[in-house]
Amino acid sequence: MNKPYTFDLIKPDFIPSRYDNHIIRRLSSMKGQYLDQQAYQKMLSHTDRVLYEVYELKRPEIVGELLHGISIVHPGKVGQEFFMTKGHFHTLLETAEVYNCLKGQGVMVMETPEGDWAVEELYPSRVLYVPPCWAHRSVNTSRTDDLVTFFVYPGNSGHDYGTIEQQGFRKLVIEESGQPVVIDNPRWQPTGGR
Amino acid sequence: MNKPYTFDLIKPDFIPSRYDNHIIRRLSSMKGQYLDQQAYQKMLSHTDRVLYEVYELKRPEIVGELLHGISIVHPGKVGQEFFMTKGHFHTLLETAEVYNCLKGQGVMVMETPEGDWAVEELYPSRVLYVPPCWAHRSVNTSRTDDLVTFFVYPGNSGHDYGTIEQQGFRKLVIEESGQPVVIDNPRWQPTGGR
Repeated sequence: MNKPYTFDLIKPDFIPSRYDNHIIRRLSSMKGQYLDQQAYQKMLSHTDRVLYEVYELKRPEIVGELLHGISIVHPGKVGQEFFMTKGHFHTLLETAEVYNCLKGQGVMVMETPEGDWAVEELYPSRVLYVPPCWAHRSVNTSRTDDLVTFFVYPGNSGHDYGTIEQQGFRKLVIEESGQPVVIDNPRWQPTGGR
Repeated sequence: MNKPYTFDLIKPDFIPSRYDNHIIRRLSSMKGQYLDQQAYQKMLSHTDRVLYEVYELKRPEIVGELLHGISIVHPGKVGQEFFMTKGHFHTLLETAEVYNCLKGQGVMVMETPEGDWAVEELYPSRVLYVPPCWAHRSVNTSRTDDLVTFFVYPGNSGHDYGTIEQQGFRKLVIEESGQPVVIDNPRWQPTGGR
């Protein structure tokens, strides 16, 4: 546990040569998150597709440690809305996260409990800094390629999925005339600074 | 300061498209660190060469933030010993660091205050986890290419260069018959658990 270790990000998918945990998120775990609920139900009635996967290296969940791994969001849409991660705040709100995009095309949708929001583009060789207190969700805007990012965040951050599941993100990313467009989420509900 | 931000790691050198601080370390700043002091003095009398450079993104140096940037160690040797960084413990000893190698060939030389040591290879697409309490030094073992790594560590880590300047690293990396070889540092002095 306390020895240095290495692993390789193996092309073309950048799946780590070693990992401790492989999370697979399917359509059924995203209930209520997509704008077009009819399209969601229809897609789900066909097959419970894998939307994204995370490969985690486990470390003690304490301050001073760094959790890290690979996130892979597959290409696709629910209605006009691109496949995306659940998104979350960190339970310990004042913790940051660094993303390094390795493959694909996408955006990170972010917001604070105070209602500020930001959308930043992701593409290979781009680094994104998510400052403390910003909820974040990866969105794959490519028609064909996986969106692959390497992430690092403090060991004591934790994940708060509940707030986003309840209130949604303020902004959504849909396809319009073949282009990704950021729109207001009509069902977004501010929870009043949590 | 508290908005998300992005930057690009621009090929072929991976210098960030934005940064707040550019550190340039020359031969003269590595007094007493290289095994062959005669070779060191001779090289220094010719020219004070740049051994390595660091491009830092600045963030508040507090827990929850993540400091990050690019380290570039140039190729070369002092005597038979490869160009390397000063190396350091973190001032707050129990903080980790994540390295992602982007270019070149090298090793990370590491040790704990208790005398454990480790040497791990670096090459493109390799990730290295330096756990809390391990001092670390990058060594470029290529004859021709820069060793480029992307690093992330906790905002409150700090840098303790003094301990290594005083005691040296336990292990050195030299070239023997054209190959990098790890040898004992004859001048290493344990400081007794700091």
